[in-house]
Amino acid sequence: MQTISFNKIVIFGVGLIGGSLALALRRAGWAGTVVGVGRTATSLARARELGVIDEALALNDPDVFRAAATGADCIICAAPVAQTLPLLQGLAPWLAPHTIVTDVGSTKSDAVAAARLALGGKVDQFVPAHPIAGREASGVDAALADLYVGRNVVLCPLAENAAASIASVAAMWTAAGANVAQMSAAEHDAVFAAVSHLPHMLAFSFLEHILRSADSAHRLNYAGSGFRDFTRIAAASPEMWRDIALANRVALLEEIDGYRTVLDELRSLIAAGDEGAMNALFARASAARAAWGERQATAVTKPSTGTGTGTGTGTGTGDKFSE
Amino acid sequence: MQTISFNKIVIFGVGLIGGSLALALRRAGWAGTVVGVGRTATSLARARELGVIDEALALNDPDVFRAAATGADCIICAAPVAQTLPLLQGLAPWLAPHTIVTDVGSTKSDAVAAARLALGGKVDQFVPAHPIAGREASGVDAALADLYVGRNVVLCPLAENAAASIASVAAMWTAAGANVAQMSAAEHDAVFAAVSHLPHMLAFSFLEHILRSADSAHRLNYAGSGFRDFTRIAAASPEMWRDIALANRVALLEEIDGYRTVLDELRSLIAAGDEGAMNALFARASAARAAWGERQATAVTKPSTGTGTGTGTGTGTGDKFSE
Repeated sequence: MQTISFNKIVIFGVGLIGGSLALALRRAGWAGTVVGVGRTATSLARARELGVIDEALALNDPDVFRAAATGADCIICAAPVAQTLPLLQGLAPWLAPHTIVTDVGSTKSDAVAAARLALGGKVDQFVPAHPIAGREASGVDAALADLYVGRNVVLCPLAENAAASIASVAAMWTAAGANVAQMSAAEHDAVFAAVSHLPHMLAFSFLEHILRSADSAHRLNYAGSGFRDFTRIAAASPEMWRDIALANRVALLEEIDGYRTVLDELRSLIAAGDEGAMNALFARASAARAAWGERQATAVTKPSTGTGTGTGTGTGTGDKFSE
Repeated sequence: MQTISFNKIVIFGVGLIGGSLALALRRAGWAGTVVGVGRTATSLARARELGVIDEALALNDPDVFRAAATGADCIICAAPVAQTLPLLQGLAPWLAPHTIVTDVGSTKSDAVAAARLALGGKVDQFVPAHPIAGREASGVDAALADLYVGRNVVLCPLAENAAASIASVAAMWTAAGANVAQMSAAEHDAVFAAVSHLPHMLAFSFLEHILRSADSAHRLNYAGSGFRDFTRIAAASPEMWRDIALANRVALLEEIDGYRTVLDELRSLIAAGDEGAMNALFARASAARAAWGERQATAVTKPSTGTGTGTGTGTGTGDKFSE
């Protein structure tokens, strides 16, 4: 058992992300009762059957927010990000002072804005969080107790947050096996616009470009393992990425513009046949990518501080679906 | 034993690609004597030690081309593509009428042009080929007898080629376990500009873009498995990709321009907050990538027609390094 834990945890959205957290916390002995709140009776029944949650509440129950908030130590918004605002608005009247609210969204400035709007004077109870983990599969059947082992979770605390609230959310993720970091919501959104959101936009655009050629089916027949890896993220959920791109629009547009500048430069180098400058650009990129790969390999072989199966989860062979 | 085979095969460049072909042909009983031609005595000695070749010839031996060509049934240019022209020029005077010459280059219009220039009236003996396979590792120590099992090899026959010459090269690759296709050099270069060369340019540009941010090291710390897969091809050899980009410049620039059009459109959609059009673009891309993945999975589970270990080699877990 951990020294800090939550007797009643409520998770709105018991899919891959929320369900995996529930499984991890139960295995770590961190959670007392886990209450899942969902849209469909079928998926809630499945979550109970899989031992992910103890109790279920239907989102369309008129009394759901009062029932969820009563006695809750921690409420986790793990539903699609577009629902964060209405969920927080529904919860606001019922939040007891000791209840911590957190989320798992991929963008954080918008979550903070939603929390300020919905919670008003209770915004100090909202600790924004973003676990950097995922799989291609979704839904509660895809949930894994190990999903967060060795993965990063970024907290973006508000100035209003009590130190103890931040510490509790950090301890919860540590109990799930994750490494916890902190940065501002603005910094978070700039970092992830660059290393996550931009590559998704580039991969979607690449597929769209291929599809526009008259012989796209023929071309795709000759795509190899480089194509396979480069485009894996383009198989991601259209709705989720539409929402992320819109939520992080300002930072993302800046990254797209910076990227286009580089691509335009490379185009000019190729057109001019500037071998030296092409080689220098490719060599910088290649060296940076190789060094990154080596750091990752080192990071995943060091002993885990989590409670899970220890090392190795982060080295996935391509089945992991990071944002 | 196959019905067609080569008693003496000469391979210029006994690295990953040439060495793997040698291993595959020896295992299939296709090759009589395999002669390797290389730049360094060390790597040639290593190739003999590993059982990849039977005999070695030093590239700097003044008599190397005569010695290589004498009695050769098939000569394979597997050295870096920039060497194709000088190799063919060196070989031209010594080629007997029955000797077939082929290559393994990633671009084919330039190989054809080099062959026409170097071989003149003997150009009918040159059958251009491109095996779509690779690994991140290079050199003869990385060579694998299974490298081509289940992989595509594209032949780009010349109008001058005898049908028997084309059939012999096709049979050789079939013996190595590959699936053999044919298309013109121009079509080949357009297809691979789109599905292979363009994504490499995009991945190199992406890394360069990340490196230009003031806090690039910090950003790279939060890159996850999506980044890992998307950028894997950016760790490729700068020199090789400089040469490919230059050799296939015309088709590649066309692909870059088409891609930029799509990226600009997506940028406009994001800036305008056009949810419907963003969703439609992402959904088309996602569906196409998912369907491609399913076709690949089906393709690699069907019985192999090759002589290798059968199914599965093409499903690699990310260690394969396609062009």
